[in-house]
Amino acid sequence: MALTDHQQREIAEARADSRPTLRPTVPALEEILYEPLPVLDHGFVRVVDYMGDDAAVVQAARVSYGRGTRKVSEDRGLINYLMRHRHTTPFEMCEIKFHVKLPVFVARQWIRHRTANVNEYSARYSVLDREFYVPAPEQLAAQSAVNRQGRGAVLTGPEAERVLAILRDDAARTYDHYLWMLNEAEDGNAADPDRAGLARELARMNLTLNVYTQWYWKTDLHNLLHFLSLRADPHAQYEIRVYAEAMMEAVRRWVPLVYDAFLDYRLGAATLSGRMLAVVRRLLAGETVDQAASGLGPREWRELMATLDRS
Amino acid sequence: MALTDHQQREIAEARADSRPTLRPTVPALEEILYEPLPVLDHGFVRVVDYMGDDAAVVQAARVSYGRGTRKVSEDRGLINYLMRHRHTTPFEMCEIKFHVKLPVFVARQWIRHRTANVNEYSARYSVLDREFYVPAPEQLAAQSAVNRQGRGAVLTGPEAERVLAILRDDAARTYDHYLWMLNEAEDGNAADPDRAGLARELARMNLTLNVYTQWYWKTDLHNLLHFLSLRADPHAQYEIRVYAEAMMEAVRRWVPLVYDAFLDYRLGAATLSGRMLAVVRRLLAGETVDQAASGLGPREWRELMATLDRS
Amino acid sequence: MALTDHQQREIAEARADSRPTLRPTVPALEEILYEPLPVLDHGFVRVVDYMGDDAAVVQAARVSYGRGTRKVSEDRGLINYLMRHRHTTPFEMCEIKFHVKLPVFVARQWIRHRTANVNEYSARYSVLDREFYVPAPEQLAAQSAVNRQGRGAVLTGPEAERVLAILRDDAARTYDHYLWMLNEAEDGNAADPDRAGLARELARMNLTLNVYTQWYWKTDLHNLLHFLSLRADPHAQYEIRVYAEAMMEAVRRWVPLVYDAFLDYRLGAATLSGRMLAVVRRLLAGETVDQAASGLGPREWRELMATLDRS
Amino acid sequence: MALTDHQQREIAEARADSRPTLRPTVPALEEILYEPLPVLDHGFVRVVDYMGDDAAVVQAARVSYGRGTRKVSEDRGLINYLMRHRHTTPFEMCEIKFHVKLPVFVARQWIRHRTANVNEYSARYSVLDREFYVPAPEQLAAQSAVNRQGRGAVLTGPEAERVLAILRDDAARTYDHYLWMLNEAEDGNAADPDRAGLARELARMNLTLNVYTQWYWKTDLHNLLHFLSLRADPHAQYEIRVYAEAMMEAVRRWVPLVYDAFLDYRLGAATLSGRMLAVVRRLLAGETVDQAASGLGPREWRELMATLDRS
Repeated sequence: MALTDHQQREIAEARADSRPTLRPTVPALEEILYEPLPVLDHGFVRVVDYMGDDAAVVQAARVSYGRGTRKVSEDRGLINYLMRHRHTTPFEMCEIKFHVKLPVFVARQWIRHRTANVNEYSARYSVLDREFYVPAPEQLAAQSAVNRQGRGAVLTGPEAERVLAILRDDAARTYDHYLWMLNEAEDGNAADPDRAGLARELARMNLTLNVYTQWYWKTDLHNLLHFLSLRADPHAQYEIRVYAEAMMEAVRRWVPLVYDAFLDYRLGAATLSGRMLAVVRRLLAGETVDQAASGLGPREWRELMATLDRS
Repeated sequence: MALTDHQQREIAEARADSRPTLRPTVPALEEILYEPLPVLDHGFVRVVDYMGDDAAVVQAARVSYGRGTRKVSEDRGLINYLMRHRHTTPFEMCEIKFHVKLPVFVARQWIRHRTANVNEYSARYSVLDREFYVPAPEQLAAQSAVNRQGRGAVLTGPEAERVLAILRDDAARTYDHYLWMLNEAEDGNAADPDRAGLARELARMNLTLNVYTQWYWKTDLHNLLHFLSLRADPHAQYEIRVYAEAMMEAVRRWVPLVYDAFLDYRLGAATLSGRMLAVVRRLLAGETVDQAASGLGPREWRELMATLDRS
Repeated sequence: MALTDHQQREIAEARADSRPTLRPTVPALEEILYEPLPVLDHGFVRVVDYMGDDAAVVQAARVSYGRGTRKVSEDRGLINYLMRHRHTTPFEMCEIKFHVKLPVFVARQWIRHRTANVNEYSARYSVLDREFYVPAPEQLAAQSAVNRQGRGAVLTGPEAERVLAILRDDAARTYDHYLWMLNEAEDGNAADPDRAGLARELARMNLTLNVYTQWYWKTDLHNLLHFLSLRADPHAQYEIRVYAEAMMEAVRRWVPLVYDAFLDYRLGAATLSGRMLAVVRRLLAGETVDQAASGLGPREWRELMATLDRS
Repeated sequence: MALTDHQQREIAEARADSRPTLRPTVPALEEILYEPLPVLDHGFVRVVDYMGDDAAVVQAARVSYGRGTRKVSEDRGLINYLMRHRHTTPFEMCEIKFHVKLPVFVARQWIRHRTANVNEYSARYSVLDREFYVPAPEQLAAQSAVNRQGRGAVLTGPEAERVLAILRDDAARTYDHYLWMLNEAEDGNAADPDRAGLARELARMNLTLNVYTQWYWKTDLHNLLHFLSLRADPHAQYEIRVYAEAMMEAVRRWVPLVYDAFLDYRLGAATLSGRMLAVVRRLLAGETVDQAASGLGPREWRELMATLDRS
């Protein structure tokens, strides 16, 4: 992640300019406001604005007139209750806005979350930077043999070297061709005056899916937590999970009571089906139950045993 | 609109507590933050939080690193362009949260706007206040003869008096019965120890649709403008239009450049169908066109003439 | 639920008119298409259209070219997997449209589910029927002493009689006044030629919240199941739960494999927090755990014991 | 667009299997049900299911008990009225499901429309086909000099040849490398037993943005028309516009009355701002108005003159 001098100056200026407000503020989040949190080789997540705090969740749940803070212990109890019983609307009363730089194939997964506001850098309008994601060697994983959409062991030796070379070379070559087709000089004129240059909206199609794009992405806390519950999960692809983890850090600073409740009632939780619950009850009653006697399929049985730490 | 001492104190405390922030702030909106703007006989609209400003629209459209302010004149030009060409996503980057007190029949219209976050005071959980909307005499309109969902002339004389008496008496009687069925004393015990008291979730069904409820309502600027374009329109029912008008005042203070663009390109604008445009072109070419020759139906013809100030 | 002759004839005509289609069809659901399923004293739910079937979920998950049916057993396995792992988008590929008649206070809860399409009968435009919900005596419950938004024991004796009388009388009186204020005769003229009559959009505010309204309500299967998981739950208010139960019957006929998966993985399931899971693991390891040693609050402990059938 | 024998057989089977239904049907749309409408060099749009017809819009607007058809002329009048006055909810009562094959860079524009249901072919789970979009020579346009996101004149001669060669070669090379990195043989085993093969979720990042993907895309008629109003517009990029045009044909067959209203009140319509309307009124009053006297900026003035056919 290399910001230009101009970009760094813009960020520094924004951070230098403190103003008074009557709104709720969260000093722990303000500490990192506008600052890029590095992700992958060239990406980042920056918090660029936020609305509300832990107390705003409580305030909305109570439809109160003031800012809504009573005692932290009371707020914690109510927030835990709301999270446990899936009263989701009070969490929608907080809002956060991120600026994210990310590879296009990650952006394609991310955008499937529809309840968010997005402004993406337009490659119809502007020229994309020469930046591509190339996995670190320890992320160069083989296809999983057991999970059709998962990773297996890390590639090593000549195969790993060749894969990295391919990813680097193909990205570089297609990008060079992209620039050649655009035929734009720094000053906006044609690089080669004898050629017209291909329209930007067409030339971009020659780029590979690991090219970086960027966007503003804004959502409410409820939908952010839903995003994080799916994308900070170990089953999520590594390349989006690291973004989710950077955002978790922002949530921890922003709404610490909600964050704790989220860890316990979402990320650390497990949903047991009716038949799984029946098995647990039989086990607790001292019965010996194996898969055949459980009424569960082999896959569900394994999932249950893993959840109960009995595998 | 009568706030209790406790509510007034909560508002005063929130307004007294200024804090530093690195986020964009809007002093003109902070001036009225938390303050109830009176609407109808007992209702209000209060801005309780906001995110972003005019510059945030520009910043998102440019996916920029800093706060995005250049010159006001450039920002105005870009905002006008975005509004005119319906580039809606940059306007989604601003967010506002209102606390609203409103009659239930108005809330039923309002809630049809789905792209907002809502927390309503729960009459399953709490007891509603003794407050009902009764129209001011000048709003006591007859059914329109020409528009099935509009108003005609104002009622006067004994009919008006009788209508007002009915609205007041029925609201009061059903509310008295509501309290009697609840059988709750101030201290939470039964008012009449010989009766169990009806569940709140049932007793509320005896209230009339002009009883006041309240909610927190949060939305982004694009969806707020869409709401206002429908509800600040002369065809909207008066009782919701006055809420829209109070919110227009908040928008004017919050994002003055967007507000100006909204007035010109939305509220003051008109959409002409292909056939209407054809008529305008013929008129501009000096042709005399009447309804029969226009290709428009009588109703559309009248609408076009009204738009062109020729009726 | 009393339909007029005209309404019954319209339904009979729609049911008599069979046509060929190349789309997937579900005979078990067609059996009740257009037929009102009675709910409460005057309400109903009718399925008026549907799109897709169990196979359409599978077809979308596989992005296949044909109709997607292989073997039922394979489809069941995939549907169970999708439901268990919350792959929700394939369930969004089925759509259903209901016509519902329901009391206004139920409609107010229902409408909070935003991801649906709604067309409601307009009381600005038309006159509402003289129909109100009055609970059956066995539903006339006292306020719960332990749950602020729940019901306790059933009211009996004179209190019950008085409550029923109030609900009936107040609904009748406010409705009579509504008609008087409207002053509309059957033929569209004024009932009393000496009075102008109040606008419909105003007169309706005098009605009580148990008056019946009706709407078309259309949603996809995923969002329908989410609605049902909240509203067919024992904690939902009885008056909306009975609608959810009627819709469950429609789901059972429409997509039987999805229905079974929903019963096991949603309605019959329980989510255990991280700390609850830790308690279960300790119990399974033979440890004796009480609330004090569990790390759970008293309320969570009770919820966990109830889930494990140990309370 | 080359379908495999298996795919063609699946489509033929679905088309051969007619069944009776009580739902509304649209024979003109059934004629093309399941059939791929070719778009670009390898893409297509297929209608795979639909719900409702013109009458369903009317039926919902009236909240009626039967199927809602009266006379076509009455339905047309009501549909025109609803379209003109932006009563959008009745149009949400019809639903359609498409299967679309499209280049990834087109999919990235398309997915920004959030109010739709989508299931995309997963390149984490499966291997993508060797198909890329390469523009036809007459679509190989230069960057527009006046519109930063538009096209200018068509490229010709050696530059055009070189661009086509680049697009073809880079797509082919990156795809070959993709296959090499995957190292999967037809039978699921490793093509080269000495290599592990890269995970699918990683290998895909080496593909160029003109590779084809496919998805099921389902939406309601209102949101479809909104999509079409933006994407069938001359300002839309050609490569998405041709998809919109194929879908227009489906709409024409499906809901002909809505289609006509859409052409007149949306596609053929123009929105004039308050200041533009003032200019039109002055012109109609016989005044000579030029840009300087109009109160409009140069760009808006040009847009208005173009709308009025006076440029």
